Amino acid sequence: MRVILPAGTTETALIDGISAAGAAPELMEHTPSADVEILEYGRPTTTPVTPVSPNGCPTPAAVTRAVREVVGFDTTVVDAGLAQPTGAPTVELGVEPGADVRAAEAVPDAAAIFDRARSFGASLPEDDLLIGETVPGGTTTALGVLTALGESTSVSSSLPRNPIERKRRVVDEALAASDLEPGDCEDDPLAAIRAVGDPVQATVAGVAAGALESGADVTLAGGTQMVAVATALRHADVDEPLSIATTSFVEDEQSDRLGEACYRLNCELTVTDPGFGSRDHVAMARYCAGEAKEGVAMGGALSLVPDGRMDDVLDRLEAVCDRLGIDADGGPDSDPKTETNPKTEGDGGP
Amino acid sequence: MRVILPAGTTETALIDGISAAGAAPELMEHTPSADVEILEYGRPTTTPVTPVSPNGCPTPAAVTRAVREVVGFDTTVVDAGLAQPTGAPTVELGVEPGADVRAAEAVPDAAAIFDRARSFGASLPEDDLLIGETVPGGTTTALGVLTALGESTSVSSSLPRNPIERKRRVVDEALAASDLEPGDCEDDPLAAIRAVGDPVQATVAGVAAGALESGADVTLAGGTQMVAVATALRHADVDEPLSIATTSFVEDEQSDRLGEACYRLNCELTVTDPGFGSRDHVAMARYCAGEAKEGVAMGGALSLVPDGRMDDVLDRLEAVCDRLGIDADGGPDSDPKTETNPKTEGDGGP
Repeated sequence: MRVILPAGTTETALIDGISAAGAAPELMEHTPSADVEILEYGRPTTTPVTPVSPNGCPTPAAVTRAVREVVGFDTTVVDAGLAQPTGAPTVELGVEPGADVRAAEAVPDAAAIFDRARSFGASLPEDDLLIGETVPGGTTTALGVLTALGESTSVSSSLPRNPIERKRRVVDEALAASDLEPGDCEDDPLAAIRAVGDPVQATVAGVAAGALESGADVTLAGGTQMVAVATALRHADVDEPLSIATTSFVEDEQSDRLGEACYRLNCELTVTDPGFGSRDHVAMARYCAGEAKEGVAMGGALSLVPDGRMDDVLDRLEAVCDRLGIDADGGPDSDPKTETNPKTEGDGGP
Repeated sequence: MRVILPAGTTETALIDGISAAGAAPELMEHTPSADVEILEYGRPTTTPVTPVSPNGCPTPAAVTRAVREVVGFDTTVVDAGLAQPTGAPTVELGVEPGADVRAAEAVPDAAAIFDRARSFGASLPEDDLLIGETVPGGTTTALGVLTALGESTSVSSSLPRNPIERKRRVVDEALAASDLEPGDCEDDPLAAIRAVGDPVQATVAGVAAGALESGADVTLAGGTQMVAVATALRHADVDEPLSIATTSFVEDEQSDRLGEACYRLNCELTVTDPGFGSRDHVAMARYCAGEAKEGVAMGGALSLVPDGRMDDVLDRLEAVCDRLGIDADGGPDSDPKTETNPKTEGDGGP
């Protein structure tokens, strides 16, 4: 078992009104770089931001890291278009940050990225791979790809109140800028990603396709962003069994839509509820209130927790939150050395 | 505990007569890229070579990986001048391959590399770091740096018969090309590395210096190459406690010289004998015959094996060798998919 984490950025995250109210867009592009440091080292090491919302909700990377500290899985981060440096080790596939979906092409080299990621995925020796993502703005690009592929669906949000109508307007603009109608990319999913997607989608899809070709079992770890990737794979005639593992927070928001989408995609769906309601801790309370929900392979990581060990994960999560400067009963500490990034991307995106 | 592995190359490895007889120099530059794949994934995944000598001696990466499969330590590979792509994740510090030491400058930006590596080393949260290396040609550059610093010593070899006189002639030429006499860099170890060293030395020294500054315990995992790095650190007035951990194979060759060097450097020395003589396996027999000896943090990794678990490590090593196509009782399998690289760098270097 290995957790692969493509991490990247898209300028789509900077669109006004898409990002969380009060967010500082210039800090958001540091979030994936910080996320992978948290996953690798247990806290940010070189990035200037700590991805914690003003009211104390940490990035899902904190949860994935907590699971890792209990379960001990291997991780491999793939640079899928990071805009800022990171102190974590990354696999280099030559992926650049994505452009705004309202540009003519959001990911000009989507097909080349997919091919390189497919070779990488096929090269891995593991029989089981879990593939996550971290990309602010990722639910908007997910909606873009789903729409270009002609799939009617909704997408989730890292915010308690999903700005879904705003996302739809952005996607409408994005399709128009690419001279596309909904469904026009039905037979060419890489054209959908090129026009209105992001580089993380191309990377996740490529790694998954390569790993499936080489006989591995693949679980896409995420919510509606992974529904978009699975849809792209099915439209690319990748027919192998495929699973999606996500959190109860995404399911709570999406209700039956998530299960129906997985049924249509012939994807097995695993939903894990980490039982955050059992603790009196602000970070877990924020997730229970609908913040963040998913991201950085959180749902997939939680699915790896053996029976009876979730309490240990929650203990570790409290320890990770402590390292991130989150008091159990309040907002983030005022740590003069770190700037707090009010944007916690998740399944997420803005 | 985390094992940091700076991996890189120097064109010094291509000098005629330095590399192992019969070696194909153009394959040697793939060795560090393959080593880090073995460390990360348990076998080469994307590199076109498998670092196994014609008579069945695997790269020390196989041993370090075997220890990792038993002990389970975290690893972080730093790109310290890789010349060829690797499928393993690496920390990017902007380090380029080193030039031939007989050029005027072997590592033009040695000081900048050191600074970036120091920041990275200081950023790591662990209390204990073990820092290794993989760089073909590394014992020749070690001799170069030691000579430029005015330290009389010898260096080890990955070959049973150490071409030490050949290395001394190369170092003489290298110093002359840089307009230096032995000892001229006594007060400026980065000038020594710039003139006649390699980029891995600058990276290892920087990571060590940064980690020591931040209060971590640092063990340099290697033989005479790490003696050269420790010497550079002491000449840079880094006075914190420092340890060197290596294999019995290096000590067997160096006899008292190794302990004496560590005594002069005020470095604690740990030597581990993995007991390869107890197994009837070609890979272990080759190490007992003096091949490879050290490299890829092998000695440091072996020092982490708890009492009573070395037999498990040897079992795992047999499994890793099997993946590398090494028969227990013969040379490498003839696997048409992989080219065999006759150069197994180690403490090593050619």
